[in-house]
Amino acid sequence: MGDVLQAFWRYERALMANDLVELDALFAPGPDTLRGDAAGILVGHDAISDFRRGRGGAPLREILHVEVREVSDDAALVIAVTAPRTGGRGQQTQLWRRIDGDWKVTAAHVSLPVPAIDSRIWRAAGAPLVPPSGEGPLAGESVAVKDLFAVGGYAVGAGNPVWLAEASVESANATAVQQLLDHGASVAGIAQTDEFAYSIAGQNSHYGTPPSPAVVGGLPGGSTSGPASAVALGQASIGLGTDTGGSIRVPASYQGLWGLRTTHGAVSAEGLLPLAPTFDTVGWLTRNAASLKGAAGASLREHAAAGDFVVAPDLLEHATPDVRAAFTAAVGEHERIDIGDASELLYIFRSVQAAEAWATHGAWVSAHPGALGPDVAGRFAAAALVTAEQESSARLRLAEARARLDEVLGDRVLLLPSASSIAPSAVTDAATVEATRQGTMRLTSVAGITGRPALSVPLLSVPQSGALLPAPVGLCLVGPRHSEIALIALGEQLLESSSRS
Amino acid sequence: MGDVLQAFWRYERALMANDLVELDALFAPGPDTLRGDAAGILVGHDAISDFRRGRGGAPLREILHVEVREVSDDAALVIAVTAPRTGGRGQQTQLWRRIDGDWKVTAAHVSLPVPAIDSRIWRAAGAPLVPPSGEGPLAGESVAVKDLFAVGGYAVGAGNPVWLAEASVESANATAVQQLLDHGASVAGIAQTDEFAYSIAGQNSHYGTPPSPAVVGGLPGGSTSGPASAVALGQASIGLGTDTGGSIRVPASYQGLWGLRTTHGAVSAEGLLPLAPTFDTVGWLTRNAASLKGAAGASLREHAAAGDFVVAPDLLEHATPDVRAAFTAAVGEHERIDIGDASELLYIFRSVQAAEAWATHGAWVSAHPGALGPDVAGRFAAAALVTAEQESSARLRLAEARARLDEVLGDRVLLLPSASSIAPSAVTDAATVEATRQGTMRLTSVAGITGRPALSVPLLSVPQSGALLPAPVGLCLVGPRHSEIALIALGEQLLESSSRS
Repeated sequence: MGDVLQAFWRYERALMANDLVELDALFAPGPDTLRGDAAGILVGHDAISDFRRGRGGAPLREILHVEVREVSDDAALVIAVTAPRTGGRGQQTQLWRRIDGDWKVTAAHVSLPVPAIDSRIWRAAGAPLVPPSGEGPLAGESVAVKDLFAVGGYAVGAGNPVWLAEASVESANATAVQQLLDHGASVAGIAQTDEFAYSIAGQNSHYGTPPSPAVVGGLPGGSTSGPASAVALGQASIGLGTDTGGSIRVPASYQGLWGLRTTHGAVSAEGLLPLAPTFDTVGWLTRNAASLKGAAGASLREHAAAGDFVVAPDLLEHATPDVRAAFTAAVGEHERIDIGDASELLYIFRSVQAAEAWATHGAWVSAHPGALGPDVAGRFAAAALVTAEQESSARLRLAEARARLDEVLGDRVLLLPSASSIAPSAVTDAATVEATRQGTMRLTSVAGITGRPALSVPLLSVPQSGALLPAPVGLCLVGPRHSEIALIALGEQLLESSSRS
Repeated sequence: MGDVLQAFWRYERALMANDLVELDALFAPGPDTLRGDAAGILVGHDAISDFRRGRGGAPLREILHVEVREVSDDAALVIAVTAPRTGGRGQQTQLWRRIDGDWKVTAAHVSLPVPAIDSRIWRAAGAPLVPPSGEGPLAGESVAVKDLFAVGGYAVGAGNPVWLAEASVESANATAVQQLLDHGASVAGIAQTDEFAYSIAGQNSHYGTPPSPAVVGGLPGGSTSGPASAVALGQASIGLGTDTGGSIRVPASYQGLWGLRTTHGAVSAEGLLPLAPTFDTVGWLTRNAASLKGAAGASLREHAAAGDFVVAPDLLEHATPDVRAAFTAAVGEHERIDIGDASELLYIFRSVQAAEAWATHGAWVSAHPGALGPDVAGRFAAAALVTAEQESSARLRLAEARARLDEVLGDRVLLLPSASSIAPSAVTDAATVEATRQGTMRLTSVAGITGRPALSVPLLSVPQSGALLPAPVGLCLVGPRHSEIALIALGEQLLESSSRS
């Protein structure tokens, strides 16, 4: 078996040199080749090759030990103990097979040591970071707090290190944090956000892109990106976030979580760094309905019923064909309503959001050139250009649109996809990310315009290439104001009947 | 290959039921069977069986997907995507082989999702938790602070949750913390300690036993257990700890790290929760000499030279035969000195340590029955029995022993093993842990009695059964007071000449 070891060492040298041609050559061609690590399993030679091209080199390491388990003349399992330069130990398990005379890796499983905290997800974490302040139904729940809420003893970082360095330490918890603590939850930590929550992608050029366990190499969705990844990965049970234009619904959709945007004004924004107060809402991301009911029950006072389901066929045109197909197959027939021109809703929403975002943060942004990542900087630059006239015109149209939508919707529950697509790849170009954003925000702006609550239920899925499992998409329920608890019950019923069929 | 899938599902059911007999039957017998996870690779059917018996059941999970890669009629690789109940995704790769007609696992590689922080290692961590307060040679270094030092904004926890709940938030950093920050290091987090630092095992009944990457399932060594594991695992580059009776040297020895106990009094104890002030010292654990020199350079003012190496053959009798053999083979011939009766040194050390520990913490311990884990509670109970007469007699003998040892040692450097054995298994019975402690503390008390600095260099190793790699043991250099920097240089020379030979 000496020749498989030779191939092993060739692979190791190529890995350390980031010799992509040699690495590609040493992995078996075709769709059956597998490579798994903590981020998930990539399927097929090409998906693995793309991954290598995107990462810019493997972490440097030494091989401490190699074990070979011969299976046949043409197959061997090679297990290596690795010592990364940065400390700790890793393991690599590879199934090598001789194909047309050459040894190739047909399956690989790689484990690396983990950092103290994943700083793409967390700014700080503890065991817990803040203990419960009361007893109640949230006992045992751990909260990932989006870094826009005050946590006593910490500054608010807002996803930007310059802001963080200038921010003063908060003396008390935000109301939305305190309500969870008072009902028995603990704070696991302070989790990352897109800068000033002004994005739905889930990228942060300072702290990195939080990983998503649902789509290997996919965007986590944002701006409540850190809490969403923390919950999806099992590092917290409740993500406390905000949703201005989709910042809870989109990460819930991308990562297969429950996500609730509450009725505008229903949860106090005290202690929360605002973005666009006309649309800013507080909400939660969880892995199951029970945790979501607990968080909502701890924080909401008013409760309304919800009526029948309706669908808006025009809205669906803004979803990708696969999402549209999954949605249509799942929801069945319901009364169709006309919500009007979705592009007009989006225009209104973005104009008022931009004007308020600039009013909130424009002075700071102007005083700190270069402090923002390019994507969010571009958005603030555009926001700076919204004139007072444009703003007041948009506010008039907002009032009209809200009145019209309220009339059309009544107490009924609008069903739609939570996002226009599955999570795009984290290495997608900016134009594609922006196109995805445009599609998704046409879907999300109905709740934004009306101030209605919107629940994303992890109910849809779409096959994805290069992966073993399909990618999740959320089914969104937009209900009448204060119908959050009713929406969760409806979401549970939908999920149950979907899993039965 | 349907029958290998049947065996796979039998294994899965047995795993979820913790059916140890069935699990043992489904893993191939003999010494070649392998099972690896984040804690390391276990070698041989029996080591794997012992591990299963010790853990009390695998985390509950669902199998989301199974891929089978047939290798031959009698061999298949089975790759599963797992969904633990607590969230996230895992991967399991198994090589199944048909042995005497039955399918058996011959190698397994298991990956589980990780928590936000490993609370066995950390109480809180950030990215960073505390940024540098200055620029200097420690730029880029991240510090795991033992939870005995004040960190501004946090209470000191001392390894005990009751103490932590009562402790008030510190307004400033301990001097030893501040010195590192001032020279450019950041604080990665606050790391766990054995309760009140009154142990060298590295166990904490409240927060768990920090894992050691050096010995699968082995004790990390204590009481600077959290910082040591953090550094060994690559989660920090400097562990800031204390060494009263071996609390830096022992974890350094067990985990293959550099560990420096400084000259008594050379680093300020301001902001440090004391245990036994006559012996308490501050020091550091690192993966390499450069980080250690940086930490020492930032914190020490006085510098002395170091003379020739000497050995004390009588001391070696307290080490296990394998450690003695490794030591003897590594250090070569040096002048032999007589350090006197090691048991007398240990008696003096433990008597004065116990009297001071009780003086420091006895009132709190008495007021909080049941608050301490059994091991440390037992030690405090024994400490309470030291009479004033015993204490003053021990203090007299301490002064005599110190004078005698200073005369024997002069400016020379005593070489000895840092611990009497490799890391014992974390599931070792209390009596074995205590016997190990007795042996090791005979070795460590020379530095304690004399207040001399002691450096543990990761230079020795001992083969261990059930593992692929040998277990580390430290080579300890006890030098004249204030010779820390000289000792590190000597340690580097020894390591270099050892790796050349």
